[in-house]
Amino acid sequence: EQHTHKHTCTHTLHTFTHTHFLSSNRSTDMGSESEIPLSPAAERLRYILGEDDDLPTPTLFTEMDTLQHDGDDMEWKESARWVKFEEKVEEGGERWSKPHVSTLTLHSLFELRTCIQTGSVLLDLEGYSLPEIVDDIVDRQVADGLIGPELREKVSFVLLRKHRHQHKKPMHRSLADMGKSNNCPANHAQSRSMNDISDTPSTDQLKNKFMKKIPRDAEASNVLIGEVDFLDKPFVAFVRLAQATTLGGLTEVPVPTRFLFVLLGPHGKGKSYNEIGRAIATLMVDDLFSDVAYKARDRDDLIAGIDEFLDEVIVLPPGEWDPKIRIEPPKKVPSADMRKSVLNLNELGQVNGAVGGAGGGEDEEMPAPHELGEELQFTGRFCGGLWLDIKRKVPWILSDFSQGFHIQSISAVLFIYLGCITNAITFGGLLGDATDNYQGVMESFLGTALAGTVFCLLGGQPLIILSSTGPILIFEKLLYEFCKSNTIDYMELRLWIGLHSCLQCLILVATDASYIIKYITRFTEEGFSSLISFIFISDAIKKMYYPINRGFKPDYVTSYKCECIAPDQVRILHKSGLYGRYNITGLDWSQLSKKECVKYGGALLGNTCKYVPDLALMSFILFFGTYSMTVSLKKFKTSRYFPTMLRKLISDFSIFMSIMTFVGLDMLVGLDTPKLIVPTEFKPTRPDRGWLVMPFGKNPWWVYVASAVPALLVTILIFMDQQISAVIVNRKENKLKKGCGYHLDLFWVGILMAVCSFLGLPWYVAATVISIAHIDSLKMESESSAPGEQPQFLGVREQRLTGILVFVLNGVSIFLAPVLQYIPMPVLYGVFLYMGVASLAGIQFWERIKLYLMPAKHQPDFSFLRHVPLRRVHLFTLVQIICLAVLWILKSTVAAIIFPVMILGLMVVRKMMDLIFSQHDLAWLDDILPEKDKKKEKGGKKKKDNKKTKAAAETESDEEPPVSDWE
Amino acid sequence: EQHTHKHTCTHTLHTFTHTHFLSSNRSTDMGSESEIPLSPAAERLRYILGEDDDLPTPTLFTEMDTLQHDGDDMEWKESARWVKFEEKVEEGGERWSKPHVSTLTLHSLFELRTCIQTGSVLLDLEGYSLPEIVDDIVDRQVADGLIGPELREKVSFVLLRKHRHQHKKPMHRSLADMGKSNNCPANHAQSRSMNDISDTPSTDQLKNKFMKKIPRDAEASNVLIGEVDFLDKPFVAFVRLAQATTLGGLTEVPVPTRFLFVLLGPHGKGKSYNEIGRAIATLMVDDLFSDVAYKARDRDDLIAGIDEFLDEVIVLPPGEWDPKIRIEPPKKVPSADMRKSVLNLNELGQVNGAVGGAGGGEDEEMPAPHELGEELQFTGRFCGGLWLDIKRKVPWILSDFSQGFHIQSISAVLFIYLGCITNAITFGGLLGDATDNYQGVMESFLGTALAGTVFCLLGGQPLIILSSTGPILIFEKLLYEFCKSNTIDYMELRLWIGLHSCLQCLILVATDASYIIKYITRFTEEGFSSLISFIFISDAIKKMYYPINRGFKPDYVTSYKCECIAPDQVRILHKSGLYGRYNITGLDWSQLSKKECVKYGGALLGNTCKYVPDLALMSFILFFGTYSMTVSLKKFKTSRYFPTMLRKLISDFSIFMSIMTFVGLDMLVGLDTPKLIVPTEFKPTRPDRGWLVMPFGKNPWWVYVASAVPALLVTILIFMDQQISAVIVNRKENKLKKGCGYHLDLFWVGILMAVCSFLGLPWYVAATVISIAHIDSLKMESESSAPGEQPQFLGVREQRLTGILVFVLNGVSIFLAPVLQYIPMPVLYGVFLYMGVASLAGIQFWERIKLYLMPAKHQPDFSFLRHVPLRRVHLFTLVQIICLAVLWILKSTVAAIIFPVMILGLMVVRKMMDLIFSQHDLAWLDDILPEKDKKKEKGGKKKKDNKKTKAAAETESDEEPPVSDWE
Repeated sequence: EQHTHKHTCTHTLHTFTHTHFLSSNRSTDMGSESEIPLSPAAERLRYILGEDDDLPTPTLFTEMDTLQHDGDDMEWKESARWVKFEEKVEEGGERWSKPHVSTLTLHSLFELRTCIQTGSVLLDLEGYSLPEIVDDIVDRQVADGLIGPELREKVSFVLLRKHRHQHKKPMHRSLADMGKSNNCPANHAQSRSMNDISDTPSTDQLKNKFMKKIPRDAEASNVLIGEVDFLDKPFVAFVRLAQATTLGGLTEVPVPTRFLFVLLGPHGKGKSYNEIGRAIATLMVDDLFSDVAYKARDRDDLIAGIDEFLDEVIVLPPGEWDPKIRIEPPKKVPSADMRKSVLNLNELGQVNGAVGGAGGGEDEEMPAPHELGEELQFTGRFCGGLWLDIKRKVPWILSDFSQGFHIQSISAVLFIYLGCITNAITFGGLLGDATDNYQGVMESFLGTALAGTVFCLLGGQPLIILSSTGPILIFEKLLYEFCKSNTIDYMELRLWIGLHSCLQCLILVATDASYIIKYITRFTEEGFSSLISFIFISDAIKKMYYPINRGFKPDYVTSYKCECIAPDQVRILHKSGLYGRYNITGLDWSQLSKKECVKYGGALLGNTCKYVPDLALMSFILFFGTYSMTVSLKKFKTSRYFPTMLRKLISDFSIFMSIMTFVGLDMLVGLDTPKLIVPTEFKPTRPDRGWLVMPFGKNPWWVYVASAVPALLVTILIFMDQQISAVIVNRKENKLKKGCGYHLDLFWVGILMAVCSFLGLPWYVAATVISIAHIDSLKMESESSAPGEQPQFLGVREQRLTGILVFVLNGVSIFLAPVLQYIPMPVLYGVFLYMGVASLAGIQFWERIKLYLMPAKHQPDFSFLRHVPLRRVHLFTLVQIICLAVLWILKSTVAAIIFPVMILGLMVVRKMMDLIFSQHDLAWLDDILPEKDKKKEKGGKKKKDNKKTKAAAETESDEEPPVSDWE
Repeated sequence: EQHTHKHTCTHTLHTFTHTHFLSSNRSTDMGSESEIPLSPAAERLRYILGEDDDLPTPTLFTEMDTLQHDGDDMEWKESARWVKFEEKVEEGGERWSKPHVSTLTLHSLFELRTCIQTGSVLLDLEGYSLPEIVDDIVDRQVADGLIGPELREKVSFVLLRKHRHQHKKPMHRSLADMGKSNNCPANHAQSRSMNDISDTPSTDQLKNKFMKKIPRDAEASNVLIGEVDFLDKPFVAFVRLAQATTLGGLTEVPVPTRFLFVLLGPHGKGKSYNEIGRAIATLMVDDLFSDVAYKARDRDDLIAGIDEFLDEVIVLPPGEWDPKIRIEPPKKVPSADMRKSVLNLNELGQVNGAVGGAGGGEDEEMPAPHELGEELQFTGRFCGGLWLDIKRKVPWILSDFSQGFHIQSISAVLFIYLGCITNAITFGGLLGDATDNYQGVMESFLGTALAGTVFCLLGGQPLIILSSTGPILIFEKLLYEFCKSNTIDYMELRLWIGLHSCLQCLILVATDASYIIKYITRFTEEGFSSLISFIFISDAIKKMYYPINRGFKPDYVTSYKCECIAPDQVRILHKSGLYGRYNITGLDWSQLSKKECVKYGGALLGNTCKYVPDLALMSFILFFGTYSMTVSLKKFKTSRYFPTMLRKLISDFSIFMSIMTFVGLDMLVGLDTPKLIVPTEFKPTRPDRGWLVMPFGKNPWWVYVASAVPALLVTILIFMDQQISAVIVNRKENKLKKGCGYHLDLFWVGILMAVCSFLGLPWYVAATVISIAHIDSLKMESESSAPGEQPQFLGVREQRLTGILVFVLNGVSIFLAPVLQYIPMPVLYGVFLYMGVASLAGIQFWERIKLYLMPAKHQPDFSFLRHVPLRRVHLFTLVQIICLAVLWILKSTVAAIIFPVMILGLMVVRKMMDLIFSQHDLAWLDDILPEKDKKKEKGGKKKKDNKKTKAAAETESDEEPPVSDWE
């Protein structure tokens, strides 16, 4: 009998290779160039999978139970489970292993194939309880002569034993366990009745938290593997039920069972059976095979499914891999649709080779071209772009608010609010200095709140945060100096410039001029944002300078003092050099504080006057501490500690927590660090100006006209700053879904320009770094579903609520002064530093700079490195670095007002690089400029390119399965 | 004809499955329990591999070249190479990919099998040049009727085309490349002659730096893959040369070629051919198959080799893995010997199952027992252990010095020297306080130098660093107080205690008493070292306290002062509360410095007297900066930046570089931070004591006898401290090769005790933390050989030189004072902190504590977690934490002198844990205590256990191949 079985197996495997070989012929047969017919296996699959593709098959949850003997008692014990990846029960550890890729042996797959070929296959079995199903299986086996009828009882008995599942044991058992020295004793009396399995799900099953990891529509497949003493050859059955049925305590979770695989065999081969069980379980969770299993009409369809699976497996050489290593689930796996389409596309011949094997992707394919979408099409109609922008934005109005209600929004609002308010105070202070307080901190607050709220409420891209920027500050400074020296009224001139500029912006909007920004490629975009980040970082660091009393000798502490000297005395001292002490006036000068002393005209004399002890270092600690704590807490999301939810919360609120910590530290130490001081009264900074600027009366008429010239500069400045920031925000990587609104953005910036000019408030434009921070703080990730699956970046919470809240908060900050006054400025500059550094992350330019310091063998596997020689990459980076260095030097001089014009310069440099670099290299390192792209497409490869792009898009988004074009 | 070929292939694959199935039968045939004969494949391999196992086959370097067409010209271009792992040429990037595991498709392996079966196999071909060899191949093909004679010329022409190898292009080509927009043009005129290949290696070959990655004895195997237009079916040849021959420019490196695999075929199947080429190349570098290839007698042996390879492959399911991912080489792969032994052990049946498949290692095997080696055997002879120690150490005397000459030693010496000197100064200062300067910094320096040098020169384990330790300090303090209050002469009493203690130590040595430390398991050892590390860390942090002038208001800077008040004035002021200013004596009190003021009896008055501005924060920055810079630089070894050598250097000298940096910062800021001050004159700290202590005369006679009692305490203290530190140093993980010398160590510690007592120097004993730091700084790693292979930890540079140098430097530190005085103490405490934290790394106890904070699913895959339930692990850790907490509390009280006795307490607790935990759990979490171990072995499983331990040992060390027990 034993011999018969062996013979059967041999026969089956012969059949396998026959079909397998044909299938291997399909794509890679050596030497034939003619059209090759599909292998029988693939042919079968094409047929059954093509039947009704519209009805997706449910996800399968697979549980493998093995038979445990405890003396005479037997029970089924869960030993592994699969949602997508394998989780094994660690016997001794009484715990689940981490999800890992199921590494199988070729052996076990071949043996499984034999099992399916020789065992009983019962498809669409009608059965409402396990005993019924077991009866059917045994009947079939007896009928087929696979087991003798005398074993009927015994097999049924074994199959109806109780199932014990791996549940988390509560911690409080630890103490109860003390004293028991052997692990897991059978502490429940084993039932000896025929059927141990109840019909209804147990509370354990219902309470199982694992349920939430399984999709709602899931069905179960149960794999039962056991060694028994009454069989002398294996008992194999594969069952598909007509209806998925909850079979009592069979499955760990209350999921109805659809498939059942049973393998019982004689003692001594447990390991081998186990491997076969793992093989069928792995197959059952395979997207393609599970489809086959659902749709199979007979045994041969299942065999064809296994053959197709074997055809796709990846093989690791035994000498290069340790089979004991559990392979972590990869970040991404090929989608089932992709794999099915490969099945269909096989006629094209080459595909299989390209998919299989790591070395296969040698195609010199170009990356998908830079797509800016229809937003930047030149319509040619008056206000055509603006109209399209509005049409695009209107349908989202409701969701623009509803999507804002999420805990993440709170942290985003806090973060961006603190960024904005710091910015407003910094720029307010600087503007105040530059314009003799015509515009000061108060105006800065008010303007930020007004412009920001309007823009976030009505703008095209509400994720953009408006703010004062460096170039505008410099422009205002120069303008004020010009006015003062030519006795022109500053506020009136400024109003006219604003009006002209507003008009010019509106003209740009009406003529769809924003379309030119499609010439802004990654080169320009990354150059601009890096530069802005560097400026941000360097500003933050510059603010940290405080003098230190270097060379302080504790021994001479007695000689360190700072005294207030009366004014006349000062003169005497200067003359005589004598440090006497005569009180001339009635005032007791020595009792005055520093401020009073200066106020009354006294002079401060001594070696400690300009120093505040510990201030510099304390500021440094606050600054650097806030920065590094924020960085660490952000990273905490990927740490091993604490539950996922808590980690996510900590990561989201990292900035808030860091600020709180260091505000606390500052209060504890009690040093007089510089604090955030907001105005508390609602009135213009300069008492001699009102809230409204009148357009006429103070300047000669020609000034009203001539102001169009400086306005042009402001317009260019605003246009470039605004639109490049918008391009950066709208980057493909951010996966924005609501489209952009370049024209609408510019429209509102122009209008706000005029409004702010009338109110005498600063001008506002998109702030790159804060906008990036805004986006970053609103990123969404998928909740990981199957254990081991990586969470995917889904996109950004695109809504208007956070932006509006930020600016409303800015407006009411006047009332928040009692709270805000505890925040030390160094802490806020730490936040600035974090913003600057964080906005550099993920910039390819930055990655390429790092390559300079890495030996080639340590460089990360960037796709552009696979396709462009390193020296070309370095050259490209070098050009970028030189451009930035030039820009950096220019922006440190008065030339800073033409800064936006220099961005145009960057675009010219990029254009010239077409001469140095091949389009192939540029496609990998940057994007191809529009015309070039068109030319390319006109060239011969158009069709092929399209196909590839499509395939790439599918791999990335797998939204729509490709239409099957056969049959 | 095409059809014929196909048919042949089918036939071949039929044959394959036949043999394969038999081979699969071998270990896991279902249902048969009888002895199964080996499959023909395994039978063959056993035969050919068993022939002469004594002669190892050379390592193979495999290069794969593919045929490139450039118009009418053709050349062979290197496309991948294998030393152990695959490195691919990135076409566009013109660079080597990272080494990765060759992931193959099952397809390509089957097709390769067909190729070998149908193509020409020429074994032991005599040929001294490529043309000869090519002629032979073509002749054979023609003779076998595989190609027509008319193709002879064409095939030869193709096979003799030039080979272009992937060499690093120099960077200066970048500029020359500018303007060329298509990549790699054929810039050398293609030769049209019959033979493009020179006979001698080119300079390019000879200069290739890659040569050093290939073992000296290596031979090459060349794989040539090409598409040509004149063939209509594949041309396949596998050649083994009788002699490895350098075939001109065939191979990238000047390594003689032994194997040649040629696959030419019609156009259109390039991808498929490529995969076949990768398959044979992967097979050629497989340890087992390369043996087969060297020893194969005919085609069928090669086929058997492929079958055996297929039998061992690991399979990844297509739905769970993305074939595009390049798998990084694993840390460890199963050794070839292991795999060969599996081949032989197949008769035992179960082995294959245990090796194949990730889920296979379910064996509840115990970890290898804790082995302390023969060093701790109780000899029963007088001084037996000591004698063995000396015998063990003598053969190493020369290498103990010669192995010290290495650059790493310099960094180790600097590091440990700084640690020792800081320790000497700290303890010296504390001892001076405790004993009214009977022992001060000077004595501490001298004693450290003397004891350390002697111990490192003559001790059993020269890696141990002697130092003063906490318990001894407390003992001295109590002893001095006792002497003072009872008017007993301290130095003389101390001498007698030292002498008694020395005697007691010698008795312990003579009686082999150290053998009891085999009861010190991981539990005790890790508890002790954690505690010492915590003490180290807390001491370092405690030293960092400096007062900060909190609440300093810069506005009132005028009122901050510190004045010197004359003594009589002080009284007046106290009475009247009047802050007048009358000079009573002739001294100008206000001009005095702080020290002078105190000296003349003045009082310091004012609110800044006790503060030094910026000192506290500067110290903090120095302290924390040194620590974190050291940590970062240490980690730098695994960073991607800079070449390996430089990284290693930075990592080795991390402490030195951090110290230099922060000393520089300190000098730059110029604050009066506390500096390292060493004595500059060679004389006892207390002027009234000499360098020698006389044993008699000052105390009554009974004191000489009674001092034996406190001496007993000191002996226990020294014994425990010394031996536990030695156990920690001798840990198995450190892979020490020269054996330990517990008895010899104790002998010298005893002798030094007496010597130091005579000289009035402190007593010395092994310092755990510094000794661990010493070991860590001397760790060796293998230079990685094959690309992608991970460097292995080889052991520690065991030598006496570094230790001796450290202590000699300590001795001459008196002369180094001018340099050392620039080092601020906070920097040194930063080094202390680093030492403390670093010695915690790798302690399992610490890893287990972290588990408390991790949700189960994020916990690392520790082997003990696979075998022990989490709650038991937590309970075990909890017991350890409680023990340490108790010890910590005790050591903070006077009870600290019985600290070493408490270690005995730890051992008792461990003993009691036998009652709570099963031996199984303890074997995984700790080690089994000696008797238990014996009992266990007496139990039934003895034989099986041994076998498993042996197998495990082989996996780990693969030193000796197991003796083949068949035939």
